[in-house]
Amino acid sequence: MTKSIDAAIIVGSDSDLDIIEQTCKILEYFDLTYSLNIASAHRTAEHLKECIEKSQKAGAKVFIAGAGMSAALPGVIAAQTVLPVIGVPIKGGSLASLDSLFSIVQMPAGAPVACVAVGKAGAVNAAVLAAQIIAVSDKSLREKLQKYKDDMAGEIVKKDLKLQKLGIRKYLQCKK
Amino acid sequence: MTKSIDAAIIVGSDSDLDIIEQTCKILEYFDLTYSLNIASAHRTAEHLKECIEKSQKAGAKVFIAGAGMSAALPGVIAAQTVLPVIGVPIKGGSLASLDSLFSIVQMPAGAPVACVAVGKAGAVNAAVLAAQIIAVSDKSLREKLQKYKDDMAGEIVKKDLKLQKLGIRKYLQCKK
Amino acid sequence: MTKSIDAAIIVGSDSDLDIIEQTCKILEYFDLTYSLNIASAHRTAEHLKECIEKSQKAGAKVFIAGAGMSAALPGVIAAQTVLPVIGVPIKGGSLASLDSLFSIVQMPAGAPVACVAVGKAGAVNAAVLAAQIIAVSDKSLREKLQKYKDDMAGEIVKKDLKLQKLGIRKYLQCKK
Amino acid sequence: MTKSIDAAIIVGSDSDLDIIEQTCKILEYFDLTYSLNIASAHRTAEHLKECIEKSQKAGAKVFIAGAGMSAALPGVIAAQTVLPVIGVPIKGGSLASLDSLFSIVQMPAGAPVACVAVGKAGAVNAAVLAAQIIAVSDKSLREKLQKYKDDMAGEIVKKDLKLQKLGIRKYLQCKK
Amino acid sequence: MTKSIDAAIIVGSDSDLDIIEQTCKILEYFDLTYSLNIASAHRTAEHLKECIEKSQKAGAKVFIAGAGMSAALPGVIAAQTVLPVIGVPIKGGSLASLDSLFSIVQMPAGAPVACVAVGKAGAVNAAVLAAQIIAVSDKSLREKLQKYKDDMAGEIVKKDLKLQKLGIRKYLQCKK
Amino acid sequence: MTKSIDAAIIVGSDSDLDIIEQTCKILEYFDLTYSLNIASAHRTAEHLKECIEKSQKAGAKVFIAGAGMSAALPGVIAAQTVLPVIGVPIKGGSLASLDSLFSIVQMPAGAPVACVAVGKAGAVNAAVLAAQIIAVSDKSLREKLQKYKDDMAGEIVKKDLKLQKLGIRKYLQCKK
Amino acid sequence: MTKSIDAAIIVGSDSDLDIIEQTCKILEYFDLTYSLNIASAHRTAEHLKECIEKSQKAGAKVFIAGAGMSAALPGVIAAQTVLPVIGVPIKGGSLASLDSLFSIVQMPAGAPVACVAVGKAGAVNAAVLAAQIIAVSDKSLREKLQKYKDDMAGEIVKKDLKLQKLGIRKYLQCKK
Amino acid sequence: MTKSIDAAIIVGSDSDLDIIEQTCKILEYFDLTYSLNIASAHRTAEHLKECIEKSQKAGAKVFIAGAGMSAALPGVIAAQTVLPVIGVPIKGGSLASLDSLFSIVQMPAGAPVACVAVGKAGAVNAAVLAAQIIAVSDKSLREKLQKYKDDMAGEIVKKDLKLQKLGIRKYLQCKK
Repeated sequence: MTKSIDAAIIVGSDSDLDIIEQTCKILEYFDLTYSLNIASAHRTAEHLKECIEKSQKAGAKVFIAGAGMSAALPGVIAAQTVLPVIGVPIKGGSLASLDSLFSIVQMPAGAPVACVAVGKAGAVNAAVLAAQIIAVSDKSLREKLQKYKDDMAGEIVKKDLKLQKLGIRKYLQCKK
Repeated sequence: MTKSIDAAIIVGSDSDLDIIEQTCKILEYFDLTYSLNIASAHRTAEHLKECIEKSQKAGAKVFIAGAGMSAALPGVIAAQTVLPVIGVPIKGGSLASLDSLFSIVQMPAGAPVACVAVGKAGAVNAAVLAAQIIAVSDKSLREKLQKYKDDMAGEIVKKDLKLQKLGIRKYLQCKK
Repeated sequence: MTKSIDAAIIVGSDSDLDIIEQTCKILEYFDLTYSLNIASAHRTAEHLKECIEKSQKAGAKVFIAGAGMSAALPGVIAAQTVLPVIGVPIKGGSLASLDSLFSIVQMPAGAPVACVAVGKAGAVNAAVLAAQIIAVSDKSLREKLQKYKDDMAGEIVKKDLKLQKLGIRKYLQCKK
Repeated sequence: MTKSIDAAIIVGSDSDLDIIEQTCKILEYFDLTYSLNIASAHRTAEHLKECIEKSQKAGAKVFIAGAGMSAALPGVIAAQTVLPVIGVPIKGGSLASLDSLFSIVQMPAGAPVACVAVGKAGAVNAAVLAAQIIAVSDKSLREKLQKYKDDMAGEIVKKDLKLQKLGIRKYLQCKK
Repeated sequence: MTKSIDAAIIVGSDSDLDIIEQTCKILEYFDLTYSLNIASAHRTAEHLKECIEKSQKAGAKVFIAGAGMSAALPGVIAAQTVLPVIGVPIKGGSLASLDSLFSIVQMPAGAPVACVAVGKAGAVNAAVLAAQIIAVSDKSLREKLQKYKDDMAGEIVKKDLKLQKLGIRKYLQCKK
Repeated sequence: MTKSIDAAIIVGSDSDLDIIEQTCKILEYFDLTYSLNIASAHRTAEHLKECIEKSQKAGAKVFIAGAGMSAALPGVIAAQTVLPVIGVPIKGGSLASLDSLFSIVQMPAGAPVACVAVGKAGAVNAAVLAAQIIAVSDKSLREKLQKYKDDMAGEIVKKDLKLQKLGIRKYLQCKK
Repeated sequence: MTKSIDAAIIVGSDSDLDIIEQTCKILEYFDLTYSLNIASAHRTAEHLKECIEKSQKAGAKVFIAGAGMSAALPGVIAAQTVLPVIGVPIKGGSLASLDSLFSIVQMPAGAPVACVAVGKAGAVNAAVLAAQIIAVSDKSLREKLQKYKDDMAGEIVKKDLKLQKLGIRKYLQCKK
Repeated sequence: MTKSIDAAIIVGSDSDLDIIEQTCKILEYFDLTYSLNIASAHRTAEHLKECIEKSQKAGAKVFIAGAGMSAALPGVIAAQTVLPVIGVPIKGGSLASLDSLFSIVQMPAGAPVACVAVGKAGAVNAAVLAAQIIAVSDKSLREKLQKYKDDMAGEIVKKDLKLQKLGIRKYLQCKK
């Protein structure tokens, strides 16, 4: 019954969904299909295992895992697959997010996790990175990525033009 | 064949054994029996699972786990048992040991790890804490703990007396 | 007159009670009795001493101490008992909670404190860890812990099922 | 003249080669071909640009960039390609390596870098992650990765068996 | 068409304009002309290059670059000019602004960036520093700087006098 | 004209007065007289010098200096006096207050500053420490300090009694 | 039998004596008498209490406490006296000394510790600060402090003169 | 008698000269003249003032100040001049150099310091930045800077060529 998917997203808690919605949006932009599960490395080890297996059977090419605090989730997924695993550190209420960042990025030799930035920027980048990974053997996706990159640059250049026209005071007023 | 044990020690890598030897020493001092395994949460998930199950069958009352970097080991053990799990952050070469400390201590609600200090002091304290936990229902062990505490205090007082007698310069010369 | 208790909770200030209420809730869930005192290591050393002695006489099997800033409270309790002491770092207004975390976790060899996560998650986990410690010699409590673990996992799996049914957008709308 | 390559490695300074040698070793283990260049984002922007273009023409599927301090190299490569870019933070003499880690991992939305651990572990993992990425469309490489994973696990289990046989004291003596 | 300018300001994103408005204000106070562009080192490398070239042709004597997160912007500008480059770390939502600060200040030998404080104070100081740099060969600007310094000191002394007259309670009431 | 004072308080900016009002309150509680000035080490070096000299002529026995960011104020005062200088780090908007704390506490050998906690607690403690210093040769002030200490302890014990009576839920309701 | 003393020094462990020797040297330079004890807040609470009481009976005017890791010692002394307490954070092997610094400086309102720099500079400054505190009511000591300050300045000026004469290369050669 | 100088270097202690020698070397490379003084903001405030005045009279166009720990030196110079001040954070033995970095970079609005990297790289860059500042009105110096930049790039490209020829193993052997 599981439909074929490009990427498997797993979050450690439903409080991470707010942030991870960005990942979904970008994957959809690239016409990539994905599964999305809530499964905690520390609280639902069995359920997590099933999610990983199901995702692999569904043809997932890459995992994306978002988690906060002692964010073991991406690493525990990496322990159970040879697919690339992307980790998104989610901001918590203390320690300035250093806990989730360090937990995700400092993986021991032999079991890599591809760590991206903390929070929203990381959630977007996890999707872009997933697309880049899949695009290694998919020329048309690579072209979409190039277009995304160009569009993004175009947006910024457009803002710059607007700034040249309005000047900083009017520009800031418009933003409010 | 597995003999009955009080505590099950697991380290993520054999490079952690240097530090964890302190744990063994103190457990032996308290006449507590223990198993000691190398099993990585990230690299030998299956072997780790077996170690945990075997330890529980052998009657372990508490787990002690030492690991460095993204130290998922104690948390992954905590995910698979309802026994108390003590985590010892092991010092790595960068990030001033903040990585292993945060990975071990910042567990999400519902899956506690009892984190002790980084390195040698933590390795000693893991054993003392294990003894304290077991002593909750073992009066004679509690008395041994009190004696250990008193002896430790006595050692410090003895050093203080020596310092009073020698003065700081001679005391420091004797230490060299 | 002091009734028999399972755990003795002490906080350094009544501003810590908001957080520590989570500890009480979980202890009650496990039908564990507890005392709760306000006593500061730095400001009411004498009163703290009395609280510790009274708690021990009342049969407390474990201490739980919550404190912020230079959080000496758990360590000072550990100095006066051989019972296990669990420390909960409470978030302050500056230094990103590193002060209370380091003060609690970095205990010298021989005087362990079992440190849990900063804030709410830590307050919950202090209670769960206390239950785990007491359950070492209490099979029925161990079963309750297993049930708690299973229920918690069940909750997450249920959320995951809901997510599968609703998809992320509707799920997030429902949460608001 | 440029031969076809799987991965393009670029380091910011020849002082990074000591660490990045680990990356080469692992890529060779997986029979992956690679180019290796020294090119600084801050000091040889033009040369870097040429290296990137040449690597892409040579068919590189993934970039690996190692750099220390304000490690702009991986991000600047990411700015010029839609291929996946893996960043290895290299340890410097101050700030506990936080500078290179933060510079590499905190990329803005739209321009991802896949950050791995600081130093040696990261250098190994950069190669494994590169292999995982390439293996997304290469079944035989995926099998090699599974074998690598199994072998690594086997090594640890073998060490554990040796530890069971020797005990910790003899084991530590053998290591010296 | 480009008019002659004293300073060229570039920000990595239009979300940085709120802060960088301070820089504009102070440059205007010193009657210094400036250009202001949005151009990202990671997302619009080409556009950035053009901005740099255009600014140099317009006679800019100094660059001011404001950026957040992995703030490569000032360093990438420094890679393309021998004019002094001033970097303003902009506060992000996590890591306590350490990421942008370290990315800007930790430049490798040979490619300096003049880093100022995080946020608003830094934005003001970037302009003052730019004025100081230009004033090295402009005596009348140096006199304006001395006047600015004296006025600023005068403001503080005036506040002190007011405090002496009102006392702290009334002074604080007046401020509200 | 300057009346005789016990303590001289200096803040680097009038934005620090909110916090330093706590210092005034406690000094008044101990019937200690004080001067209060705004004078910045970086912006009004001359005015600061005058404040220091005037305070010394007025018989000040101790300096209290509150400052944020690169908080040079306490150290610069220490450079110009042999009276004890107490430094209060004031919280800024970034770097989690580590900047003001490190700037104040890390004085080089020979020029001490007595650093207290960041923010409000530090502002209170600066006054208590000043009183303790003056009390070294003032028995009646020492008695007041003992009473302050006893009262403070009494307050906490009273809160504890209230907590015993009300229980945590009602106690927390009353606080709201 | 206890002779009258000016300052009471207490260290948490005899491994701190190496650093604290600097404190002794400077106190001796100022002809101040002192007691020196080893007493741990966490391991010898009773012995510490006796040391504090004995020191107060011997007329100590100020306490100096040096400790590492979770450095509760200065705070626990502050809890038992109204004399000024100076805390010296001692460097440990991990966490970049942040643990002892934060534990000492972040005291709650009402119980101040005067924290000085980490390590050797702090050990020197603890003695100078103690002298400054005692000098508040001792004019001749204040003059000695002024002389110490002038001599220290003179030493630096002398080095500067030597540097002017030799130039940097020869100066550095002489130092070797 | 004071000869005319381009840059005035001041260090807080002669232990900083090792690092600051790099600054001298690079200034000499650019044929820039400089004065070099030892003068501490905290220990020789008067001597520092004289050094600053003398340097200004000698025609210094820019100040370079190197200091460690609570590195007030660059800021205190900035308080006394309207010339640009470059600050070099020098590494100390604890706090991972965060103390000197934060003390130098976090200057309040109105009194900028141009902060460069910690240690050797910063010492080199202080000189390059000074040259860039002076070159704003000195075309031939600007050309020298361009040549320096080109040579530096050339060195790296040469190393890259050597690496292409030798391969990584032989290259690393040659370096030893």
